[in-house]
Amino acid sequence: MKFDLEATLRFSKDAELLEKELHGIIEEFNRDLKEKFGDAKISDWSLSRDQLDIAIVSETRRRSHDILLQFRNILSKKLGKKYKIGVRGIDVRKYEISFDLEREPLRDVTIPFADVKIEGRKVRMRLKETGEDFLSRNYIDRMVKLVREKVENQYYEGKKEFWKLIWKSEEKVPVWDKDPTEEMLRRGWIVQGPTKGKWFYRPQAAAILRAMERIAIEEVLKPLGFQEVIESHIVPFDVWLKTGHLEGMPGEIYYVCEPRTRDILEWERFVDLVKITREVPEDELRKNISLPSAGICYAQCPVIYWSLKGKTIAEESLPLLIYDRTAISGRYESGGRHGIERVDEFHRIEPVYIGKPEQLIELRDKLIERYKHVFNNILDLEWRMAWVTPWYLQQAGKVEEEGYGEGVIGTMDFEAYLPYRGERESSKWLEFQNLSILGDKYIKSFNIKTQKGELWSGCSGIGLERWTAAFLAQKGLEPENWPDGFRRYLDRLPEGIKIL
Amino acid sequence: MKFDLEATLRFSKDAELLEKELHGIIEEFNRDLKEKFGDAKISDWSLSRDQLDIAIVSETRRRSHDILLQFRNILSKKLGKKYKIGVRGIDVRKYEISFDLEREPLRDVTIPFADVKIEGRKVRMRLKETGEDFLSRNYIDRMVKLVREKVENQYYEGKKEFWKLIWKSEEKVPVWDKDPTEEMLRRGWIVQGPTKGKWFYRPQAAAILRAMERIAIEEVLKPLGFQEVIESHIVPFDVWLKTGHLEGMPGEIYYVCEPRTRDILEWERFVDLVKITREVPEDELRKNISLPSAGICYAQCPVIYWSLKGKTIAEESLPLLIYDRTAISGRYESGGRHGIERVDEFHRIEPVYIGKPEQLIELRDKLIERYKHVFNNILDLEWRMAWVTPWYLQQAGKVEEEGYGEGVIGTMDFEAYLPYRGERESSKWLEFQNLSILGDKYIKSFNIKTQKGELWSGCSGIGLERWTAAFLAQKGLEPENWPDGFRRYLDRLPEGIKIL
Repeated sequence: MKFDLEATLRFSKDAELLEKELHGIIEEFNRDLKEKFGDAKISDWSLSRDQLDIAIVSETRRRSHDILLQFRNILSKKLGKKYKIGVRGIDVRKYEISFDLEREPLRDVTIPFADVKIEGRKVRMRLKETGEDFLSRNYIDRMVKLVREKVENQYYEGKKEFWKLIWKSEEKVPVWDKDPTEEMLRRGWIVQGPTKGKWFYRPQAAAILRAMERIAIEEVLKPLGFQEVIESHIVPFDVWLKTGHLEGMPGEIYYVCEPRTRDILEWERFVDLVKITREVPEDELRKNISLPSAGICYAQCPVIYWSLKGKTIAEESLPLLIYDRTAISGRYESGGRHGIERVDEFHRIEPVYIGKPEQLIELRDKLIERYKHVFNNILDLEWRMAWVTPWYLQQAGKVEEEGYGEGVIGTMDFEAYLPYRGERESSKWLEFQNLSILGDKYIKSFNIKTQKGELWSGCSGIGLERWTAAFLAQKGLEPENWPDGFRRYLDRLPEGIKIL
Repeated sequence: MKFDLEATLRFSKDAELLEKELHGIIEEFNRDLKEKFGDAKISDWSLSRDQLDIAIVSETRRRSHDILLQFRNILSKKLGKKYKIGVRGIDVRKYEISFDLEREPLRDVTIPFADVKIEGRKVRMRLKETGEDFLSRNYIDRMVKLVREKVENQYYEGKKEFWKLIWKSEEKVPVWDKDPTEEMLRRGWIVQGPTKGKWFYRPQAAAILRAMERIAIEEVLKPLGFQEVIESHIVPFDVWLKTGHLEGMPGEIYYVCEPRTRDILEWERFVDLVKITREVPEDELRKNISLPSAGICYAQCPVIYWSLKGKTIAEESLPLLIYDRTAISGRYESGGRHGIERVDEFHRIEPVYIGKPEQLIELRDKLIERYKHVFNNILDLEWRMAWVTPWYLQQAGKVEEEGYGEGVIGTMDFEAYLPYRGERESSKWLEFQNLSILGDKYIKSFNIKTQKGELWSGCSGIGLERWTAAFLAQKGLEPENWPDGFRRYLDRLPEGIKIL
């Protein structure tokens, strides 16, 4: 990598008399640089009245812009004290960063703040934004990383997600092959929700979701010692900046705005217009609300990690086993909504586990055992487990890095056969559950510690709608066809609401 | 009331030759008006080339602007057919509405779309907005209503809410006089949430909230035959336009924006900037999200009513007894937040009941009996019940209208003594529960019907945080000090998370 920079420093007065002095300062500065970092230096300079033009080249981890800022400080100090001359400002005339890619891009790449030219595997990134404030932040390296990432992503796109079968149940004869959502709608067990991709569950459907919840708690979480927590379902951006959700899926988030004020006078015109027109006055609304700085829960684990930010968990609390079943998840789906299984709003239990690597590996096996018990003995499902690698691990290249061998860090999907979608072999199965071990990714992001040794974390998303969809698709809507294991939790449906 | 209007109708060509014809049409029109409505007429007119100036005065329920629009239609029809002359447009030159108030305003009143002048009890409202589209909507009467309402509100402001004691428990000796929130924070049972006015409940506190939930379900809702439903916690504006929340408390709502698109290309610059700057780029965010058309649940009943909109409930399902305990409530509090009892986000169970008036009156008594059982025998609280009248009934004057006698339509508050706030007599007690019968207010708004007869509805807000705050403030945090009734639901606290 090469950082090639040209800048002009403006002094507070004519400094031509100090040329010799400057010569000495620059020589010393270069010597120092070489010693500490190697191939980096002020490669050229010239003084004219109150302007000092310099060129800086670095091929080291000490970037040219950092060298420039450091040089400015040294200059200010040395000239200021002795000659009362200050450095008034810096103009960067050119800043070009060259580096090599692992492989040739398939298409052009653009990023903010720079022009990017790529020939073969060689990148020349010329900065358009060179203000001092800009240079003093840690942006340049992230820009380089972003170029690399965009090229790598060109190779990923269109590739199927990694998928490897781990286990599969025996085939089971389904009770029917209808879409349970359609049939529940027909029977009035569910009603389309008031906004896109939401449902209103009437008593019969609500009872089934709640039975699933009790099963997850009684058969999986309690036996393993998980404790319940209750988290906020409104997640501020700073939490998602740490987890990566804001860069990963900003187009899937339901954003939350606060009112700018509660002051009734500020809202008077809004209220008047609502009362007169029975419509919402958009301009008044826009005026009276803030830009979002938070969104509705996407998954529950970020806020759980956040609640432990910077904390040291006592060893005796490890592995820490907690779950939230309160925060409601919102995901903007636009297209692709279907039934109760692909929706904008759903209800999940999310167990999160934090512990030593070996504790989590052991826990993972116990969790799988409990889940198997539920899906085989209670719900009596036809299902399978597959090893998959989600975006957030794939991109970070975490999977291979960790050294605990393949099949430790990563995610398992639990998939159920949906008879209404067609043949077992050719139809898409429903991912109705997952289980991840994430290594130290979030532990580091939130700076969570313990007394000694490494900490890992993981989580497992239990989607009540997904469990219900899988179960009803295979077992139908009549309690008498349901397996005994499930009927121990829900034997009889509530009466419901009779609508004429 | 007097509606005084002057307008010019523009014909498609010179119509002076038709003066006589016009005379006849207007005479007939006026005759017709008088017959149907009484004191309303075209009081003056004059024709000049292609312009017809008219004055309309009405003191009847047939408003002058409606008369104008009707006259235009008749004219178009009569002249169009015979003379091929059309009415090209209408300019309203003056529209003034005069009416009397019940009492003199205490201050000036302004409303959108009109200049309002009040002398004594006499109002003159001169319209500023007189486009045909504007006049053809039902705005004018709402504007008159708004002026009246604003004057009435001037008398309400600063007045205390109506409050009448109905019942009170015996005094009980509190275990302590500490603020339980402070003490739970100290012990690490709760953590301040990631955004204002939210909490993160660690296992001990979560267990107490969940015990309250089980008590409400097992001791109140199940014995009375309530069925659970699960509703969306995202409420579109059209629901709140019907319930009045958007005019009642727009400054307390957490608004929800959808992404304008999920398209990854549209979000590319946003994502790039997040990756480079580790901040959220406000302009890109603004560009990529929609103006809110929904908000987070404020109370659960509106969506329950919505789910029955336009439906006819079978008599055998009456009284319909349902509850939601899933939607999380958000209320923007700005100031006044305190502890777990005055927060921006809380967890409620909301039973809603719909039935014949006599069914609801009977149910109300049964509900009170069950609540008494819980607060006396299980939580062993010092508490009281008071008759109060909430804004939405007060303003509508519903309380007196109904004819079922005082103390039927309206709201009861359940209040608990909080020892940490000071002496019983002088401190503010906590409203930890309420119960309302609302008459046909929401039934009508959502056009809910049954086979025959009148329907009423009501609801009762069970706030888990409020129950918990009342209980812990009186009984402390040590299970050994808790009453046996409660210990049957929660005997031992979970271990929690040990933080160093």
